[in-house]
Amino acid sequence: MRRSNVQRQSDRRADILAAARRCFARSGFHQASMQEICNEAGMSPGNVYRYFPSKEAIIAGIAENDRADVMEKFAAMAQAPDFFSGLESLARYHLVERPDEEFALCAEIMAESRRNPEVARIYQQVEDAVRERLIAALQRAAETGEIAAPANGFNEVVTIMTALADGLCWRRAVDPGFDPQTVLGTVLATVRCLLRVQGAARTAGGELQ
Amino acid sequence: MRRSNVQRQSDRRADILAAARRCFARSGFHQASMQEICNEAGMSPGNVYRYFPSKEAIIAGIAENDRADVMEKFAAMAQAPDFFSGLESLARYHLVERPDEEFALCAEIMAESRRNPEVARIYQQVEDAVRERLIAALQRAAETGEIAAPANGFNEVVTIMTALADGLCWRRAVDPGFDPQTVLGTVLATVRCLLRVQGAARTAGGELQ
Repeated sequence: MRRSNVQRQSDRRADILAAARRCFARSGFHQASMQEICNEAGMSPGNVYRYFPSKEAIIAGIAENDRADVMEKFAAMAQAPDFFSGLESLARYHLVERPDEEFALCAEIMAESRRNPEVARIYQQVEDAVRERLIAALQRAAETGEIAAPANGFNEVVTIMTALADGLCWRRAVDPGFDPQTVLGTVLATVRCLLRVQGAARTAGGELQ
Repeated sequence: MRRSNVQRQSDRRADILAAARRCFARSGFHQASMQEICNEAGMSPGNVYRYFPSKEAIIAGIAENDRADVMEKFAAMAQAPDFFSGLESLARYHLVERPDEEFALCAEIMAESRRNPEVARIYQQVEDAVRERLIAALQRAAETGEIAAPANGFNEVVTIMTALADGLCWRRAVDPGFDPQTVLGTVLATVRCLLRVQGAARTAGGELQ
């Protein structure tokens, strides 16, 4: 296959995934039909099915892109001068800069995950990648002495950080009047304090304050 | 109407709402049909429609119960010896003690709110009741000196507290392996941090951290 054909196929794939993101965000994962996605992509069903035989395959493609995006953002975070400036950039991107459509899509995928085990499995991989990278970043910060490592590890802190991020994404998805920029400083200050408290719990033998 | 008839009608209403909760949690708000709800309640469609003419009317009934539950739980919180012990009981109930079905239903309603303005409007009233009661509890704690009141009020604090609660409810809805009991202590430590950070921002003239 010539280079230009490979490129064209890759572009087509990307076009279909972009169209599907818009359809899922607008109509919902369950309600968006393959026909609606074909129309949005401006391609025939036969052509779309060559690339993606089902909505689950499209979701897997979207998740693959999301995972690549997670890797890229955490790689950028690792280049930041310190943990908290890296976390601030990441939080600003994740909560503030992403377009509304992403939040709507995220809400759809979360809702569908509850009933569709294949979608849940696919997105669990993205979540696992986030957790793993976040724990690695916290461990690097503990090694450089920027934060104290809790005796029982960073699992609990990461659960709180990701739950808070999910909850704020939800708010953005359901409340157009909510501006996450206004709470970003408080979110970061709270994470800072939590890491200190958890680190202190280690030295104080488990006391959480 | 005789007393027993009033009681019987009220029981019927409660039976339909309980059946609808199970159907929405199991099949999704969008996918659960009125017929499925009738079957679950063991009643004829004609009978169910006498009480609730639409799924939106059922959702309004569920929301009315949820709002009554919010009022009751916050009234109990106001009787606690201090803000944090009241908050701990509330968080334990909200995140740990409620059955799985409630989390599934909550996820469904949140997802449906994004596309169905009537459901969004109905649930906004429950959220408003939660915010109002939480702000009142925080103000009482500030008056007794248990916490410091931020200069800009408790709105931001409540946004972050409710986002964290939503994110943890989501985790329970999508991850059967997640035990919120394990993070309850850290959740409360997070709220303590949040209040300290916000209170400190007041005394330090806006510096967060």
